[in-house]
Amino acid sequence: MPQRCEQMPAVPPIAATGRTGAPRPAAGLAGAGGAGEAPRAGEAFTNETLARMSDLARKFLGIERREQVAPHLAPEDLAASLDLSLGEQGLPLDRVFALLGEVMAATPRTCTPAFFNQLYAGRDAVPTAAEMLTALMNTSMYTYRVAGPHALIEHELMRHMATKVGYAEGEGIICPGGSIANLCAMIIARNEARPGIQDEGHDGRPMVAYASEEAHYSLNKAAAMTGIGRRNLRAIPADARGRMVPDALRSAIAADRERGAEPFMIIAMAGTTVLGAFDPIDDLASIAEESGLWLHVDGALGGSFLVSERLQPLLRGSDRSNSFNWNPHKLMGVPLSCSPLLTREQGLLKKHFKEPADYLFQSDPEKFDHGTMSIQCGRRNDALKIWAAWKRHGDAGYARRVERLCDLVQYAADRVRHDPTFVLTAEPESVCLCFEVIGRQSEEICERLLLEQRAMVGHAVVRGRKVIRLACANPEVTEADVDRFFDHIRAIA
Amino acid sequence: MPQRCEQMPAVPPIAATGRTGAPRPAAGLAGAGGAGEAPRAGEAFTNETLARMSDLARKFLGIERREQVAPHLAPEDLAASLDLSLGEQGLPLDRVFALLGEVMAATPRTCTPAFFNQLYAGRDAVPTAAEMLTALMNTSMYTYRVAGPHALIEHELMRHMATKVGYAEGEGIICPGGSIANLCAMIIARNEARPGIQDEGHDGRPMVAYASEEAHYSLNKAAAMTGIGRRNLRAIPADARGRMVPDALRSAIAADRERGAEPFMIIAMAGTTVLGAFDPIDDLASIAEESGLWLHVDGALGGSFLVSERLQPLLRGSDRSNSFNWNPHKLMGVPLSCSPLLTREQGLLKKHFKEPADYLFQSDPEKFDHGTMSIQCGRRNDALKIWAAWKRHGDAGYARRVERLCDLVQYAADRVRHDPTFVLTAEPESVCLCFEVIGRQSEEICERLLLEQRAMVGHAVVRGRKVIRLACANPEVTEADVDRFFDHIRAIA
Repeated sequence: MPQRCEQMPAVPPIAATGRTGAPRPAAGLAGAGGAGEAPRAGEAFTNETLARMSDLARKFLGIERREQVAPHLAPEDLAASLDLSLGEQGLPLDRVFALLGEVMAATPRTCTPAFFNQLYAGRDAVPTAAEMLTALMNTSMYTYRVAGPHALIEHELMRHMATKVGYAEGEGIICPGGSIANLCAMIIARNEARPGIQDEGHDGRPMVAYASEEAHYSLNKAAAMTGIGRRNLRAIPADARGRMVPDALRSAIAADRERGAEPFMIIAMAGTTVLGAFDPIDDLASIAEESGLWLHVDGALGGSFLVSERLQPLLRGSDRSNSFNWNPHKLMGVPLSCSPLLTREQGLLKKHFKEPADYLFQSDPEKFDHGTMSIQCGRRNDALKIWAAWKRHGDAGYARRVERLCDLVQYAADRVRHDPTFVLTAEPESVCLCFEVIGRQSEEICERLLLEQRAMVGHAVVRGRKVIRLACANPEVTEADVDRFFDHIRAIA
Repeated sequence: MPQRCEQMPAVPPIAATGRTGAPRPAAGLAGAGGAGEAPRAGEAFTNETLARMSDLARKFLGIERREQVAPHLAPEDLAASLDLSLGEQGLPLDRVFALLGEVMAATPRTCTPAFFNQLYAGRDAVPTAAEMLTALMNTSMYTYRVAGPHALIEHELMRHMATKVGYAEGEGIICPGGSIANLCAMIIARNEARPGIQDEGHDGRPMVAYASEEAHYSLNKAAAMTGIGRRNLRAIPADARGRMVPDALRSAIAADRERGAEPFMIIAMAGTTVLGAFDPIDDLASIAEESGLWLHVDGALGGSFLVSERLQPLLRGSDRSNSFNWNPHKLMGVPLSCSPLLTREQGLLKKHFKEPADYLFQSDPEKFDHGTMSIQCGRRNDALKIWAAWKRHGDAGYARRVERLCDLVQYAADRVRHDPTFVLTAEPESVCLCFEVIGRQSEEICERLLLEQRAMVGHAVVRGRKVIRLACANPEVTEADVDRFFDHIRAIA
């Protein structure tokens, strides 16, 4: 077990300088904190706190190396094993850090090479360090005044990412997750199609949006939230690999026009959630242009392929879209969350999300007061981590990363193809591999892998069949790790 | 300047174990990283990374002690002083950490006793440490499967906070900011008032919501986004202290009913943004009950007063509300962001935000799959930091904290009252103090304070006059710090 670093330089902690004038607690409360531990109105973060935090961090890294999958307990058993309750009196600092350590040890490990459960995985050095430092600086991203260099960083990052999409004069804003980025895109598209709706409210004439049947469920949420209505989001058929069929889209738009509804938006998936499939964006862009509809690309998963010459053909036509959702917290190894929404045209975010706020937007150039472009007011800093990581890797490093992930999935697909134990659900287009184990329930396999602490992987439904879905998002995973994964499944089957 | 800790225990970093199978970069790229620095597909976070991060953290704490206000540069000057650009090739690790250090040094200091600019301030030890560890664990909060103990922690935290509101059987979900919590509340209220709207879309019959003229601008955004329309959010007059006038609300509802519109929601402010005023929630609850309207309390600022016996009378009637927005990232010293939306009735969040997602919600009890209650899919962990901080402080410690903040504002108000240089704008109800310097422009004073690196404070408009708005959110601030703040202003004036 790593030890505490005892040689920490002796800079006096802020709390010891005696400059705090916070009132001392009543004697009766001091006992709650233990000797010398009386909780005050506030407690400064000092070098000592940093050392305690680092100690827990090192221990957690050590645990991960020894045990790639955490024990899985039922919620009631896990709850019984931890002191979760909150109450009147506080606890001594030692006890709180001990509790944090217990929680960490019981936390599912998303960063080990046995985690294939989600579209994020692994722990990249620079963005993780930057995210930790972000907590320390604690700047809100609404104004240049308080965000300072971080506002400039977000601006540069959005510019760079917009260029990758093919938006020469684009801009963007980081949203708290891809679902909210999709929501914002739908609001912009709705408002552009029906000017004045944001002031007057929806007038009841139906507006219709289109996405593939394989599209993400956040689009249903967005349709429900915006007053569009879930029934006015059409699920367009997809082909065997999960890609939207353009002719089906064309027919649906025509049918809606015929019955007097107003089509306003097409959503193209650049990486569907289950199969990782890419809609034919270029074809959908032609339909959008012909029909005068907004084209939004949900590249939450696949946006990062834009940095790779080899992979970017999957997103051909993105430059013709009006907006683009891209989540670096998925394949680019940035801590959760980081979800830019990019627009081809400048000024649209401000046009649809700005509200006057004298108390907030003051003397600085509005260009860097990003609160005028976001649906949030206070907004955490999700820019520094991805900017720092991009500095480290460059486009070239990120290209290697996403190519490596796709290669890994092809390696896994070969294992499935050449082993009669398995059946491949669909040819993988990107980083998701769906397959079944012949004669076995996919759900049961996933449960066994977890309960025996061998791997974490999820299941999904494809064309009515429950399949195992292997997601490769961690480039530190090796071919040997993939082999081990399949060997575990064979052992269970 | 603190030095690097050279005595770090010699646990071999993951990157040195040779288990990565990532392809080596082409020779032509190796130069980009410098000798031994060739960027790979991924780069593991090791004890060495942790040490580099800690080194920057200690340096930042040191800078804060020496310089409470960072130099303020115009955006173009700041941009010229930093290498912000992103490009094809990555940089050596040393260079990236050096850049991070430069960015940190140029970051506005939100945690020093000279920062009075926003409704968050200061750096509390435990939640900051917990937030840093959160980055390391990187769990998404949508399912129990991957969030594990953090799902239980959010559940316990929401239960405890709901109890403080007075919801005996309440529940909640942490949203990414108070604006989005307000948005979610408006969607629930809208859907409850007009069943089926989420499926069929808005039918065009106007729906009206009511908030005080001092309410937060996020409500305008929410009205615009949900299809309600900004014009259907009524701004009800407030009294001299900024509190909504109940009779004016009653008249507005009657007038809307008369003209055939459908009132559906009242929003009570528990702490307005500029004056920190509290609407008479109990009176508004009576009106809501009489009229059959949803009552939402926006306690983004003032929710934390519920933990203090002395201050909770300001929120009397909260238990009669239907939903409540409370931001611990404001007065409770938790890093940005942390914004629970609490509901009195269980099941409403799921009813209005759940979408089926086979690939995600699997074999665990749905009760802890919080993704069924949120507008997000992937959702960062904003629960651990506030839970850990609450463990440390207890209700009692948080009561001391918010009482201390109010006392500090009263101390500042006395300075204003007893000095003919100043004029008080309104009696402060909580943690905001608005005042003017006789014969001087408020905006100019704020700019001078910043440019001379004396303090950060903002201005706002109250009844048509631009006033200085002192926000007290950091309990480490002392009376001496407040004195220094006013002395600086006197020196300028």
